[in-house]
Amino acid sequence: MPVFKAEALKRLSKEIFVAYGAPDEEAELVSEFLVKANLCGHDSHGVIRVIQYVKAIENGVLKPSANIDVVRETRSSALLKGNWGFGQVVAKRAMELAIEKAEKATVSVVCAFDLYHVGRLADYTMLAAEKNMIGVAMVNSTPMVAPYGGVERLISTAPISYAFPTGRENPFVLDIATSVCAEGKVRVSLHKGEKLTEGFIIDKNGNPSTDPADLYEGGAILPLGGDLVGYKGFGLGLVVEVMGGILSHAKCAYEADKKGNGVFFEVINIEDFIPVDEFKDRIDALIRRIKTSRLRPGFKEILLPGEPELRTAAKRRKEGIYLPERTWKEMMEIAEKKNVDVAALVGGK
Amino acid sequence: MPVFKAEALKRLSKEIFVAYGAPDEEAELVSEFLVKANLCGHDSHGVIRVIQYVKAIENGVLKPSANIDVVRETRSSALLKGNWGFGQVVAKRAMELAIEKAEKATVSVVCAFDLYHVGRLADYTMLAAEKNMIGVAMVNSTPMVAPYGGVERLISTAPISYAFPTGRENPFVLDIATSVCAEGKVRVSLHKGEKLTEGFIIDKNGNPSTDPADLYEGGAILPLGGDLVGYKGFGLGLVVEVMGGILSHAKCAYEADKKGNGVFFEVINIEDFIPVDEFKDRIDALIRRIKTSRLRPGFKEILLPGEPELRTAAKRRKEGIYLPERTWKEMMEIAEKKNVDVAALVGGK
Repeated sequence: MPVFKAEALKRLSKEIFVAYGAPDEEAELVSEFLVKANLCGHDSHGVIRVIQYVKAIENGVLKPSANIDVVRETRSSALLKGNWGFGQVVAKRAMELAIEKAEKATVSVVCAFDLYHVGRLADYTMLAAEKNMIGVAMVNSTPMVAPYGGVERLISTAPISYAFPTGRENPFVLDIATSVCAEGKVRVSLHKGEKLTEGFIIDKNGNPSTDPADLYEGGAILPLGGDLVGYKGFGLGLVVEVMGGILSHAKCAYEADKKGNGVFFEVINIEDFIPVDEFKDRIDALIRRIKTSRLRPGFKEILLPGEPELRTAAKRRKEGIYLPERTWKEMMEIAEKKNVDVAALVGGK
Repeated sequence: MPVFKAEALKRLSKEIFVAYGAPDEEAELVSEFLVKANLCGHDSHGVIRVIQYVKAIENGVLKPSANIDVVRETRSSALLKGNWGFGQVVAKRAMELAIEKAEKATVSVVCAFDLYHVGRLADYTMLAAEKNMIGVAMVNSTPMVAPYGGVERLISTAPISYAFPTGRENPFVLDIATSVCAEGKVRVSLHKGEKLTEGFIIDKNGNPSTDPADLYEGGAILPLGGDLVGYKGFGLGLVVEVMGGILSHAKCAYEADKKGNGVFFEVINIEDFIPVDEFKDRIDALIRRIKTSRLRPGFKEILLPGEPELRTAAKRRKEGIYLPERTWKEMMEIAEKKNVDVAALVGGK
């Protein structure tokens, strides 16, 4: 597998988007977030998406330079229409607006619809945490998950993210699908020819399966909690469908014409409840106590939300990012089609 | 087991609280919520708590008639100090204030600390839904749940609730612990002498256990997701600890002097995003589609959040509420100690 420095991949990704008509600033932002996903170990949300996005641009599904319309607005809220621009561009604008509003109004909600994929939610909630605020995100998408007790895919993997500012400790950022796993995990197993752990998916008849291909042949991912208490993950998934699909005007996963992401962002200004320094001291103390817990047999340490990603990023910044041959080949094809000078951008890889 | 009509139990509960010094209005509200929990099938949050609350009043831990102080306030937020009044009284005030603020400010957050047990969160989030708003609640408490990979109880069962208004369909109200199960479930199994399903708790050495007694001998409840993906439930539980324990000044579960509940309530005014009637039509359509999903082998239907409780309530309104002999005996003891005329209040049961 070819290995690349993050900066090289970002340059390449950016130039490809520019070559396909994206303005410089949009290409820069989208590439930054995609490469960040690779760095964090979430390759399914990384530069592999360049291929998908470029196809979407060519098909007219994704529209670089799209206007972002403010459809409704109050002092503490807004509803944005993305006009099928890059999800990252619309979502970043949505979170920045939410932060701006929460600075004055203590708490704010900004929703967005008609936008392409936003990528990882942590990228947005962390923007709030970096401003000493609490960031919350819920995003719905196309259907992948069965209701608890059902066979059909009717809800999306419906991720939720929360980010809190910390003091000396690592940033706290939770970013999880409300299903047992994200779809990317199943796809990766499929591409690697590996079996899944039992409890992740069911086949088209509703029976448990460990064959990732079953998901793409009429099966579904199970909600968080699985057979034991899957009504919990299912309930949370429905909440995300309502917040991201109905409140935000973006449609629910089950609807035939559902496309793109539906965005619900919320920001809470900590300072109106507790001095930020005290909040940080207290969350640091919580984290330290958790990390010193006595361990269960088979565990070497307790990781806080966001920690696995931080470690992978440190490693990959040093060692580089591995891309599967197929991904690299397809990226080169789309680059060459528009005469992007790949060698000049990534150097000797 | 003795069987009672809901109204009879509520009268009895109310008179007991009044006899122990609670003002009429507080005794009425607390009794209403406790009996509602019995009706919904959540007996661990029902009138069995009368015994605990009365002891807490006698010990000076719970203080009827306590003032509720507004410690901080903005147009869209407030922080309430409950001065160890009834949790139900403080929490209802907190939610009413949040609703009032969201009417003007679109979205509001009200936190509360220094209050006794609040009971079921659905009782509060439904207040917002009944006003055509979205109700959100997160509440922390004393430690019961181990971190993913840990043995020690360091976080609470950390429940989350969301309620949405619906049109023709049943109300949508999710109210779940972010642990695999609530503590009440383990306690009920212990009292019935039954084994737990595997995957709910670990013993003091961190090994899986089906003996409910192990929880009370140094064991812990597992976070939602269990061994497979328990880092998800653990992450959500930490979010609740931060919202309910730090932002709200109520302390985190792990802290030695943690008492009572920490409350985070949020209300979103739907009308500022989408006309309420359209919201209701869309959530109705979502519910109908979900309920008509093809079923997995072994399932007879798909239940939406809040539906199991509605059904139990309909049944128990007709058939009455069963109380364990021990609960009834203890309630009679505390009633007789203050000369409450039990027979007159509950009639021939």
